[in-house]
Amino acid sequence: TTFDIAVVPGDGIGPEVIAEARRVLQSVLDAASVAVTWTEYSLGAAHWVETGETLSEATLERLRGHDAILFGAVGADPQDTRIPSGLIERELLLKLRFSLDHSINLRPARTYPGTATPLAGDPEIDFVVVREGTEGPYVGNGGTIRRGTAHEIATEVSLNTAHGVRRVVADAFSRAAQRRGRLTLVHKHNVLTHAGDLWRRTVEEAAAEHPEVSWDYMHVDAATIHMVQDPARFDVIVTDNLFGDILTDLAAAVTGGIGLAASGSINVEGSAPSMFEPVHGSAPDIAGRQIADPTAAVLSGVLMLQHLGLAEPAARLEQAVHAQLAEWARDPEAARGLSTAQRGEALLARLG
Amino acid sequence: TTFDIAVVPGDGIGPEVIAEARRVLQSVLDAASVAVTWTEYSLGAAHWVETGETLSEATLERLRGHDAILFGAVGADPQDTRIPSGLIERELLLKLRFSLDHSINLRPARTYPGTATPLAGDPEIDFVVVREGTEGPYVGNGGTIRRGTAHEIATEVSLNTAHGVRRVVADAFSRAAQRRGRLTLVHKHNVLTHAGDLWRRTVEEAAAEHPEVSWDYMHVDAATIHMVQDPARFDVIVTDNLFGDILTDLAAAVTGGIGLAASGSINVEGSAPSMFEPVHGSAPDIAGRQIADPTAAVLSGVLMLQHLGLAEPAARLEQAVHAQLAEWARDPEAARGLSTAQRGEALLARLG
Ligand SMILES: CC(C)[C@H](C(=O)O)[C@@H](O)C(=O)O
Ligand SMILES: CC(C)[C@H](C(=O)O)[C@@H](O)C(=O)O
Repeated sequence: TTFDIAVVPGDGIGPEVIAEARRVLQSVLDAASVAVTWTEYSLGAAHWVETGETLSEATLERLRGHDAILFGAVGADPQDTRIPSGLIERELLLKLRFSLDHSINLRPARTYPGTATPLAGDPEIDFVVVREGTEGPYVGNGGTIRRGTAHEIATEVSLNTAHGVRRVVADAFSRAAQRRGRLTLVHKHNVLTHAGDLWRRTVEEAAAEHPEVSWDYMHVDAATIHMVQDPARFDVIVTDNLFGDILTDLAAAVTGGIGLAASGSINVEGSAPSMFEPVHGSAPDIAGRQIADPTAAVLSGVLMLQHLGLAEPAARLEQAVHAQLAEWARDPEAARGLSTAQRGEALLARLG
Repeated sequence: TTFDIAVVPGDGIGPEVIAEARRVLQSVLDAASVAVTWTEYSLGAAHWVETGETLSEATLERLRGHDAILFGAVGADPQDTRIPSGLIERELLLKLRFSLDHSINLRPARTYPGTATPLAGDPEIDFVVVREGTEGPYVGNGGTIRRGTAHEIATEVSLNTAHGVRRVVADAFSRAAQRRGRLTLVHKHNVLTHAGDLWRRTVEEAAAEHPEVSWDYMHVDAATIHMVQDPARFDVIVTDNLFGDILTDLAAAVTGGIGLAASGSINVEGSAPSMFEPVHGSAPDIAGRQIADPTAAVLSGVLMLQHLGLAEPAARLEQAVHAQLAEWARDPEAARGLSTAQRGEALLARLG
């Protein structure tokens, strides 16, 4: 079989980091005699300015045909007033997640050699956030009446279904069982009683089927405290779309690794391709200068290989990244001033 | 005039810390020849177990008659299964905020001498979060259908009104004008477009009337990163009820001061008494042992004096707290093992 990958380099530093991710992915796949084809799609803020397309139904249909999507970063320079605020996020990024039923937004949070955390004591951190991806307050179900008057009312509705919550909770328990066997449900059930009750019952039911996993519950506000005071306590966090959005940025901050964080938007049923994407944005301020670090894009590629069942090349690539970062941590001079491409080449050399 | 204060010592360490707050407040008020009466109310988890009352209409009516409420902490021991989860929070704490129209939840976040932050470099932090207190996802407007089945749907509705947002934004701009003149709106308007739009327009309108205040906008996820990486950048944060709940716990964590954080639930129109409360909970594990630190309760008393227009005794008390903490920071031996009451007495001695 040939793996058929869609590539969306996107805006800003997206194309630079994705070029390196592709090269190293190609290398480990070649070494494993796995055939792969890459099909590039032009999408993002620049593409919208040129063509008026955010994400057409035709493009979406073509994307559906691939085995996975490797995604760079999209988003305009905030100074660029031609692009309406939020347009690309909603009409491209969120539209992909919703249309392709990306029920799980997977975000590992860990420390890497050579990257100090902003926390005193520089703890070692290694957990993963399993964020729901298609429901909650993200469904776009809000409205406004009497806009602009003293009587304006604006609503936002969070929708939560047994279907949506069960599949993300099941996935989180499986991951916990394969890790350190600890799961933390984060919600705010003392205030959001209906949604919180659904989440809690769902976790209780899944827990009964996973005696090998121990679990606890934390309110989202308290979770931020634990994430600052003792992030090493977490193994797998399962949470809703909005709390997951907030906690994964906080997680990236406490690990010191916003530049290194990878993510996967996963369709668990396999009814559409999953998508793998570095968490850093398009960083227009440093774009085109070959100074962006491709590590997060490469690690997103590792998540993609794992998802495609290519465990061996995934492990090889991940180990190469860790070994390379460890070497640069021991000898920071060797890494200083390396271009994006040179960082990719260092990995290629290491992979042999 | 005599100031007529309601006191709710509450559960756990509440009574211990409130006793000290009352003593030092009495002292600064005596010195300023300000008359005060204190009326104690028994409310909280223990009171509910004894009487079945969370907060009756009759008690609420009596509370309405006071000039302000000094609140300790409420909440059962989590091991105590007699108290339904969330009951005291919703039927007492949130009921007070909503019934007394506590439109602003004021939460200063700052570092104090002798308390290290968990952040590398131990930065100095001094900002205040002005959290909306009566709207957003806290309104209890949710529902469930087909509970317990595979077709269950649970909703939570966030309600946001021009009335509610305007008054908190106006208050935040006034505070910013009296501080360092910087305001940050935190929301998630790229996803919660209707509520986010109302907040943004409201801030833009208020900004036009406050040219002395500069403002910026941050998505809530990005705000957590800045709060870890550069908390000193914040002066006044204005945000909705849920984001404020999350960010104030994070703020307390990064300042290292969960044990020192004070808060005020303020009725800006003066139509009902405002309420002042340490952010730490009832801490049942250390209750009754005279080891709780009364500082957060005392600083909540400072906020109460400020709110009542008693600027001079407020400043005296605040300075005494800072001087005392600074002394103990220089001579940690002197503070070691001090009881809750001895900490109160140290402040009393300092006040003269
Ligand atoms: C860009 C935005 C819509 C998105 C989100 O809120 O999910 C981003 O913050 C993320 O976490 O991927
Ligand atoms: C106890 C709970 C209802 C409350 C809230 O969510 O507002 C608490 O977390 C707080 O911040 O005062």
